[in-house]
Amino acid sequence: MENKFTHIGEKNQPKMVNVGDKKITKRQATAKALMFLGSEIISHFNNEELVTKKGPVFQTAIIAGIQAVKKTSELIPMCHPLLINGVDIDIDILDKEHIEILCTVSIEGKTGVEMEALTGANIAALTVYDMCKSISQKMVIKEVKLLEKSGGKSDIKNG
Amino acid sequence: MENKFTHIGEKNQPKMVNVGDKKITKRQATAKALMFLGSEIISHFNNEELVTKKGPVFQTAIIAGIQAVKKTSELIPMCHPLLINGVDIDIDILDKEHIEILCTVSIEGKTGVEMEALTGANIAALTVYDMCKSISQKMVIKEVKLLEKSGGKSDIKNG
Amino acid sequence: MENKFTHIGEKNQPKMVNVGDKKITKRQATAKALMFLGSEIISHFNNEELVTKKGPVFQTAIIAGIQAVKKTSELIPMCHPLLINGVDIDIDILDKEHIEILCTVSIEGKTGVEMEALTGANIAALTVYDMCKSISQKMVIKEVKLLEKSGGKSDIKNG
Amino acid sequence: MENKFTHIGEKNQPKMVNVGDKKITKRQATAKALMFLGSEIISHFNNEELVTKKGPVFQTAIIAGIQAVKKTSELIPMCHPLLINGVDIDIDILDKEHIEILCTVSIEGKTGVEMEALTGANIAALTVYDMCKSISQKMVIKEVKLLEKSGGKSDIKNG
Amino acid sequence: MENKFTHIGEKNQPKMVNVGDKKITKRQATAKALMFLGSEIISHFNNEELVTKKGPVFQTAIIAGIQAVKKTSELIPMCHPLLINGVDIDIDILDKEHIEILCTVSIEGKTGVEMEALTGANIAALTVYDMCKSISQKMVIKEVKLLEKSGGKSDIKNG
Amino acid sequence: MENKFTHIGEKNQPKMVNVGDKKITKRQATAKALMFLGSEIISHFNNEELVTKKGPVFQTAIIAGIQAVKKTSELIPMCHPLLINGVDIDIDILDKEHIEILCTVSIEGKTGVEMEALTGANIAALTVYDMCKSISQKMVIKEVKLLEKSGGKSDIKNG
Repeated sequence: MENKFTHIGEKNQPKMVNVGDKKITKRQATAKALMFLGSEIISHFNNEELVTKKGPVFQTAIIAGIQAVKKTSELIPMCHPLLINGVDIDIDILDKEHIEILCTVSIEGKTGVEMEALTGANIAALTVYDMCKSISQKMVIKEVKLLEKSGGKSDIKNG
Repeated sequence: MENKFTHIGEKNQPKMVNVGDKKITKRQATAKALMFLGSEIISHFNNEELVTKKGPVFQTAIIAGIQAVKKTSELIPMCHPLLINGVDIDIDILDKEHIEILCTVSIEGKTGVEMEALTGANIAALTVYDMCKSISQKMVIKEVKLLEKSGGKSDIKNG
Repeated sequence: MENKFTHIGEKNQPKMVNVGDKKITKRQATAKALMFLGSEIISHFNNEELVTKKGPVFQTAIIAGIQAVKKTSELIPMCHPLLINGVDIDIDILDKEHIEILCTVSIEGKTGVEMEALTGANIAALTVYDMCKSISQKMVIKEVKLLEKSGGKSDIKNG
Repeated sequence: MENKFTHIGEKNQPKMVNVGDKKITKRQATAKALMFLGSEIISHFNNEELVTKKGPVFQTAIIAGIQAVKKTSELIPMCHPLLINGVDIDIDILDKEHIEILCTVSIEGKTGVEMEALTGANIAALTVYDMCKSISQKMVIKEVKLLEKSGGKSDIKNG
Repeated sequence: MENKFTHIGEKNQPKMVNVGDKKITKRQATAKALMFLGSEIISHFNNEELVTKKGPVFQTAIIAGIQAVKKTSELIPMCHPLLINGVDIDIDILDKEHIEILCTVSIEGKTGVEMEALTGANIAALTVYDMCKSISQKMVIKEVKLLEKSGGKSDIKNG
Repeated sequence: MENKFTHIGEKNQPKMVNVGDKKITKRQATAKALMFLGSEIISHFNNEELVTKKGPVFQTAIIAGIQAVKKTSELIPMCHPLLINGVDIDIDILDKEHIEILCTVSIEGKTGVEMEALTGANIAALTVYDMCKSISQKMVIKEVKLLEKSGGKSDIKNG
C-alpha cells in the first residue's frame, strides 16, 4: 500500500515533511468548536446585571486562542513554523446552554493553516472551561472541526 | 449575585486566583477525547500489513499530549504552574471509524489537574489530526470532557 | 572588595545562586509601572460612548502580564523557576494622560518574587503600548519600580 | 467615533490585525531604557579593581534582551511572529547613578519592530535589576520609549 | 587582529549579527551524533521478543529532536529564528554497543541551518539517554559534529 | 523479560513515569562536555591582546546552558518539571585545542537532575559552537557524560 501519510518516513518513523518545493500562497482556514456550558454558566453571561461575566471570560479565551495559534508548531510535533498574518476568534452564545467558537487564521506560506485554526479554537474552548469550572465541571467540548480552508492545492469546505 | 468565578476579580477583570491557603494533596484527573477519523484512516491502523501506521501516529500523539500537559499553565492564562508527578495517555481504536484518547495526570499540589488532563487529551487528538490529514480532513473531535478527578475539596465523577 | 553579587561566581561569570538552604516561606511582592499615554489615547477610554476601548486594552494587558509573571524564569536568565500561587494586576487611569499598573505576585517558596512582579507590570505596560500604538507612538513608560515585598529575610517598602 | 485601534475588532474584542496586504520592507526600530541604579551599584562597575562586575552584569542583560526580542510575539498577545534579521543592544554608564540601554532591531517583514525593540530594552533592564538586586532594591526604570523607527508607512523620530 | 567572530560586536559584547543583506537560498545541513549505549541497553532493541523497546525509545527521540530543531533560536542565544522547511532524523544501531543519529534540516532562508541540525541530533541523543537511563547511566555521547552543509556562501563536507 | 524501561508503559508506549511516591530529597548531578575547537579558535581566547574573545563566548555559553537547564522538561519529552535550586557552569581551556564544560545542577525534589546537567552542558557546548563557527566548522563535541549524581536511591560516580 502506498504511503499517503506525509509525516511518516520510509522506516515508518515520524518526520517533518519537506515543503521546500511548495509555492508560497495566501492561505486561510477556519475551525469551529461547539461547546456545552449548561444553563447555569450561560445565565451569568446573559443576566440583567450591568456587568456580566461574559466580558472577562470571552476575552481571556480569545487572547489564549490567538496566542495558541502562534504556538501551534510547538504543540503539534510535525507542524511547520509559520509567519501568521492574522487571527480572528469569535465566540457566540448559541442558546441557553451552548457557545460556538470560530477561529480564522491567515498566512502567506507554503503550508495550510488548518492545524493553527483548530488549535486556536480548541485552546479558546479550554480557556472558557477553565474560567467557568468553579461553577460546574459538566462542560463538554462537543464538536471541533475544520469548516473551510483555501489557498492551497485544493480548497476544502466542510460546511 | 455573588461572584462564583474564581478567576475574575472585583473589577470584573481576569486574575489568577490565590491558592496560597489551599492544602497540598495528591490529586489526579482523567479526561477523555472521542474522535471520528473515518474508515479510510482507521483502515491504515488495522490492516494486514506487517507494519501499520498506528505506531508512528499514536506515539507522536501520546508524546505531544504529554508535553502539552506540562505546558498547560502557558496555554491557559489563569492556570497555575504545577509540578506534574506523572502522565499516562492511552489511545484505543473504538470501532471502524472512531478512536478514544484517555489522559490521566497526577500531581501533589494545591490545585486540581483537570485542565492539564483536558489539554493533554486535546493536543493528542489534534496531533492525530495532523498526522492523518493528508488522507482526509473530515475528522471531527466529537467529545472532550472530564471523566473524573480526585484529591481536591470534592471529587468528581462524570461517568 | 567582597562579592555581594549573588548571581556572579568566583571566576566573575554569571551563575544561578543556589537557594537550596533557604527556607520555604509565603512571599509577596508588588511592582508599579507608571505610563504616559497622552490625552488622545486616554480619551478613548473615558468617552461618552457606550462601548469604550478600555475593556479590550486593559484586559489584554492584564492577561499578558499574568502570563509574563509565569515566564519570568525564562526571560531573566538567573531567575529560579517558581510555583506562583496567585497574580493580581490592576490598571488605573490616573489622569487625562497617565495610567498606573500594579502587579502583585504571591508564592510559597525559597526566593522572593520581586522579579516576577516587575516583569508582570512591565509586560502589561508594553501590551498597553502595543494595543494603542496605532493611535500614537509618543507613549512612555515613565517609572517601573518595586513598591514592596514581604516574606523573605528582610521586608522592603519603597512606598 | 471611528475605530483606530487596529488590534480591536468590530465586537470590541482583541484580534490580531491581518497584515496580509502590507508590503515586505526592510524595517528597523530603536528603543531606549534609562535606569537609575544608584551610586553603590555603579561603583562596582567603575572601580579600580582589575575585574569589575560590569562584564557579567551587562553581558547577561544583553543576552537576555536579545532572546526577549525573539520572544516578543509570545509575550505581547497581538504581536505577529517575525523573522528577526539582527539585534544590537548597547548599555552605557551615563553618570554615577544611571545607565542607558539602547536596543536596535532589524527585519524584513510586514510589520514594524518597535514592540521588539521595546521588549528587548525592557528585559535587558529587568535583567540588570536582577543581577544587582542583592546590592540594593532602590533601582528604578525611569524611562522606556521608542527612539526611532524606519521602513514602514511612516517613519518616526522621537528624539 | 581583525574580528572574525560575527556574533561579537565592537565593544566585545555578544550581538545577533545582521543578516539583512544576505540572500534567501535553499539551504540544508546534516549533523551526526554517535552514542555509546552499552550492550545491555542495545540488547533490549535487538532481542527475540516480539515487541522490542526500540520503537518507543527511537520514536520519542526522533520527535524530541524534530521539536528541538524548531526551538534552536530559543536555545542558542545568537541564532536567528527560521522557517524550517523539513526535518528528517534517522537512528541506526551501529553495533552491539553504539547507535548513530543523523539529523538533516532544510530551509529557504538567509542563514545556514547547521546549528539546527546539531541541536536536533543532540536533543535526540539526550532523549535516548533519558529513555534508557533506568537501565544504565554509563551512556556517553561520543561525537557530535556537522557532516555537511550546502546552499550558503560556501559548502562544507566534513566527511 | 521484565520491563526495566520506566518511561515505557504496558502497551509499549512512552509514558511519564509517576514519581508521586518518591521522597523529596536534595539531589545534585554534574555532567561534562569535552569539545574540540582547534588551535585557531583557541588562539583567540589566549592571545596577547588586552581584550580576548573568551569573555563573550564563554559567558554566552554559560547563560545559554543555565537557561537550557530550566527548559529540560520542555526538551526531553518524559522529563518531569522541577524547581531548580541552583546551576553552576564552568568552562576551562584544557589545552591548545580543547575546552571542557562542567555543569552542576541542584534541586530538592523527587527525581534526579542528571538530564538537566547533561542538557546544560550540551547546550553550552552548542553555543560555543555557534559563537565560533564563523572561524571554523571543524569543531566536534567529543564526549558528553554524567560525572556524578547524589541524593537519590543510589549515587553514581562515573569518574
